[in-house]
Amino acid sequence: MSDLKLVGKQHRDHKSVIKVGNELVGAKELCFIAGPCAVESAEQLDEIAKGISELGVKFMRGGAYKPRTSPYAFQGLKKEGLKLLKDASDRYGVKIVTEVLDTTLIEEVYPYADILQVGSRNAKNYSFLKELGKIDKPILFKRGMSSTINEWLLAAEYILMGGNENVILCERGIRTFDTSVRNTMDIAAIPLVKELSHLPIIADPSQGTGQRSLVTPLSLASIAAGADGVMIEVHNEPEEALSDGFQSMYLNTMGDMIKVLRAQAEHSGRTLNLTKEPQTV
Amino acid sequence: MSDLKLVGKQHRDHKSVIKVGNELVGAKELCFIAGPCAVESAEQLDEIAKGISELGVKFMRGGAYKPRTSPYAFQGLKKEGLKLLKDASDRYGVKIVTEVLDTTLIEEVYPYADILQVGSRNAKNYSFLKELGKIDKPILFKRGMSSTINEWLLAAEYILMGGNENVILCERGIRTFDTSVRNTMDIAAIPLVKELSHLPIIADPSQGTGQRSLVTPLSLASIAAGADGVMIEVHNEPEEALSDGFQSMYLNTMGDMIKVLRAQAEHSGRTLNLTKEPQTV
Amino acid sequence: MSDLKLVGKQHRDHKSVIKVGNELVGAKELCFIAGPCAVESAEQLDEIAKGISELGVKFMRGGAYKPRTSPYAFQGLKKEGLKLLKDASDRYGVKIVTEVLDTTLIEEVYPYADILQVGSRNAKNYSFLKELGKIDKPILFKRGMSSTINEWLLAAEYILMGGNENVILCERGIRTFDTSVRNTMDIAAIPLVKELSHLPIIADPSQGTGQRSLVTPLSLASIAAGADGVMIEVHNEPEEALSDGFQSMYLNTMGDMIKVLRAQAEHSGRTLNLTKEPQTV
Amino acid sequence: MSDLKLVGKQHRDHKSVIKVGNELVGAKELCFIAGPCAVESAEQLDEIAKGISELGVKFMRGGAYKPRTSPYAFQGLKKEGLKLLKDASDRYGVKIVTEVLDTTLIEEVYPYADILQVGSRNAKNYSFLKELGKIDKPILFKRGMSSTINEWLLAAEYILMGGNENVILCERGIRTFDTSVRNTMDIAAIPLVKELSHLPIIADPSQGTGQRSLVTPLSLASIAAGADGVMIEVHNEPEEALSDGFQSMYLNTMGDMIKVLRAQAEHSGRTLNLTKEPQTV
Repeated sequence: MSDLKLVGKQHRDHKSVIKVGNELVGAKELCFIAGPCAVESAEQLDEIAKGISELGVKFMRGGAYKPRTSPYAFQGLKKEGLKLLKDASDRYGVKIVTEVLDTTLIEEVYPYADILQVGSRNAKNYSFLKELGKIDKPILFKRGMSSTINEWLLAAEYILMGGNENVILCERGIRTFDTSVRNTMDIAAIPLVKELSHLPIIADPSQGTGQRSLVTPLSLASIAAGADGVMIEVHNEPEEALSDGFQSMYLNTMGDMIKVLRAQAEHSGRTLNLTKEPQTV
Repeated sequence: MSDLKLVGKQHRDHKSVIKVGNELVGAKELCFIAGPCAVESAEQLDEIAKGISELGVKFMRGGAYKPRTSPYAFQGLKKEGLKLLKDASDRYGVKIVTEVLDTTLIEEVYPYADILQVGSRNAKNYSFLKELGKIDKPILFKRGMSSTINEWLLAAEYILMGGNENVILCERGIRTFDTSVRNTMDIAAIPLVKELSHLPIIADPSQGTGQRSLVTPLSLASIAAGADGVMIEVHNEPEEALSDGFQSMYLNTMGDMIKVLRAQAEHSGRTLNLTKEPQTV
Repeated sequence: MSDLKLVGKQHRDHKSVIKVGNELVGAKELCFIAGPCAVESAEQLDEIAKGISELGVKFMRGGAYKPRTSPYAFQGLKKEGLKLLKDASDRYGVKIVTEVLDTTLIEEVYPYADILQVGSRNAKNYSFLKELGKIDKPILFKRGMSSTINEWLLAAEYILMGGNENVILCERGIRTFDTSVRNTMDIAAIPLVKELSHLPIIADPSQGTGQRSLVTPLSLASIAAGADGVMIEVHNEPEEALSDGFQSMYLNTMGDMIKVLRAQAEHSGRTLNLTKEPQTV
Repeated sequence: MSDLKLVGKQHRDHKSVIKVGNELVGAKELCFIAGPCAVESAEQLDEIAKGISELGVKFMRGGAYKPRTSPYAFQGLKKEGLKLLKDASDRYGVKIVTEVLDTTLIEEVYPYADILQVGSRNAKNYSFLKELGKIDKPILFKRGMSSTINEWLLAAEYILMGGNENVILCERGIRTFDTSVRNTMDIAAIPLVKELSHLPIIADPSQGTGQRSLVTPLSLASIAAGADGVMIEVHNEPEEALSDGFQSMYLNTMGDMIKVLRAQAEHSGRTLNLTKEPQTV
């Protein structure tokens, strides 16, 4: 792995901590990101943003541009979706994590996002990654569904080479022979990446499993294994969701999930980065 | 999954608890199994058995018959290895978990083992599994390296059909495209199996990762995800081990590992099944 | 691959030719094996044996003992199936290829089989493979669904070490992420094995694809890539088959398939080993 | 696969034939593309272009922009490479197949390419694929290393939706557990794609195997299975190549390869599209 220069452990004598406004990713506090797979409407987003912010969540995910396997599936609200995210951000104070699909959209997405997400389909889109190296906002860089750890880190190297060292890695499951679940979460990637790189790494158990009932156990496993955060999909009405409802948590039970994640975070010597203090259960 | 009859959740209105002498697997206490990959000599086994029993470990693993990819690699001490296991068991009171390779060896291994381990290479050896259904000792049944969850549970069904319902499942990693680690541990299999079956499931992060530094984080992740136990490889001199030394924990640091696993077990509402009470760290 | 001793190219200065009675496998003539997935009844087997022998086919496959994922699926006619195979062999002069599931069945299957087939589920069942090294009939040794080329050849080494060098390798598809087809046939394995070993290698495109329409193209591809034969599933009534009917060729169109395979064999500098001379199309 | 509209078989009552100037892809004649992995220098490209055109080759491949796993590996000559390709095209009359890496480069690559190649890393880069739908030159669309057949065809649908129906699919191997070879060529994909779609499909056994000795056997297999062409890497000095020399054919033995491919094409009822008539061997 001699080509891991900027991303490699030897580049920096401490773990990288990424600043997102006043928030830190990679420090003691675990990053907790929640929100819908896709922005669907003003009402949907408002309800979710309100709900999660009341629970203390500081980061909201939501796709305005959606990469879909079928060209005939819902492709996202695009520019309109970005505006809805901004409105929610203004109203509820949540920071926005949203996907940027390609080089031509960086400029458009940039003002609306606090963290720009790069999806697994772009995991080896090196010319795009180089462009992301030129901006000054944090990149949430998902692993490709068939990327080895080394390929993933080398791809991140393209971003850092460009000058942007604010990269947060995200394990989101790999593609294997077993289709019992949507993807196979490679939990070992979390401690392995931490051996090889100074960059923070979070987990996405919603994409990683594709099954609601597995999201909490895999979130706990990720934290226990050393993840710097988790990103989960939540929806006010999963059954009505325009995409991936089956893997979305119910908004009205998210409080319970947060409690167990917070407890695990504290057991693991971390805290869960929320606006609210823990309350008596 | 309509063919999951005896193994399926609907067969029993409660989780199965497997008795191994006076010990329980699948109850509140987590099963903790430690020992060398292979029995190599009287001295080696004595040192390890002594060491782990002093730490409170109740179950010792150790291979007398080793299935090896190359016919020219060390194949185990065979009958002599079984005797050494029995001696250690008598001396230190540890229960023995050891692999039985095929039908012809069941009779030989039976008297020496408290739990008979079935390796991943036998995951679909149905005629062998049927024979294991006829005995009255617990079976530790590892997942095949390319078995889906459904195939694994259906294979376990062959054992239960024969009359032996004392089956402990063991996730030990699957084979994927990524060779950064020896196998990819499918942590999601743990909660998924618990949804589908009443059988207990433990994890083997030594085989599952093939890398010493990953064994503790993946043990913690497994427990956090709901595993009923962990099995790990430990050696007094990993550098001199005749097989798999690179994934074996050092005997002289096992106490530290046990402390963190115990703490995680208790955080997860379980206990770690050891002979000793927790001591002040 | 230093552990490839008896199986390796350096062991023998020429390609191995396996004798099956008066027939040769691995010589200029390509081995062509056809027959049902499972022996189902006297009538079924007679009709298929009659049909294929009239087309000149010399080798008939058919399972008497069937390894099935579900214990509740048809497991084969067992001893009765073996007798039916022998009857058909006597009546129509076809040589029998049938699977032996484990060590305890070797003695039973031996007298009925001209070639003993070892299925993919036994690809790493080393104690069984060692036993097969003690008999004097040819072994058709299928690749495991997740065996690397090296693991496969090392497993064959176990058979040769025992004294039986009459091993015919069989590529039957590997397990990958893509479930569009049942397995992914690894056609490159054919020339690669021929570089590494002196053993003959045939292809099983029925198991390898699991889809009838793909069997002829993949048979042609296998021959073009240098295979020493093909084994295909054929049934008089695929829609009524007790197992794997969807991948079985129709008996009444097998003549057409044979013509194109023969033509490809001859184009590739081989012949197709049939009792009959080519006829005018 | 209800979302296969323009790409699906039902869209057109005949196989698509793509015109590249006066040449046809998908008709009786098989497309044969040869050339270096990367354009390295004027001398290298001239020698290869001269050599292959003397053998009758009509299409030359060569990368000017190279997507590389490591940012520190040779990234291609870029614009200068494109000019060298054009010069060679002018001098020797070969049509140029070269990769376009992203949307921002379409305009630059367009004038230099007769066929624009889209690599496996862009297999799910939908916004890029939509842009390619707006141009009027043929697209050689490689399968993603972990794309299912359905995902691949749906991705092609994005191109056709944009208005460009001149898509040539290219099987280039998928990523599996077996690292004996660089990729696993999925030969079954060739007849399967022809069942599902009207688009032509060619094979790339150089990328597909990553091993020189396997390129000819896999080319033959691809043609036997029904491929509409093959693309291979050839180099005047593979040992000195700046990328992928180990899988490049030697220029001075390409004539032999062409002879056997032509013979196989004719055996399969096709011809190999070359400027020269077959010569006596």
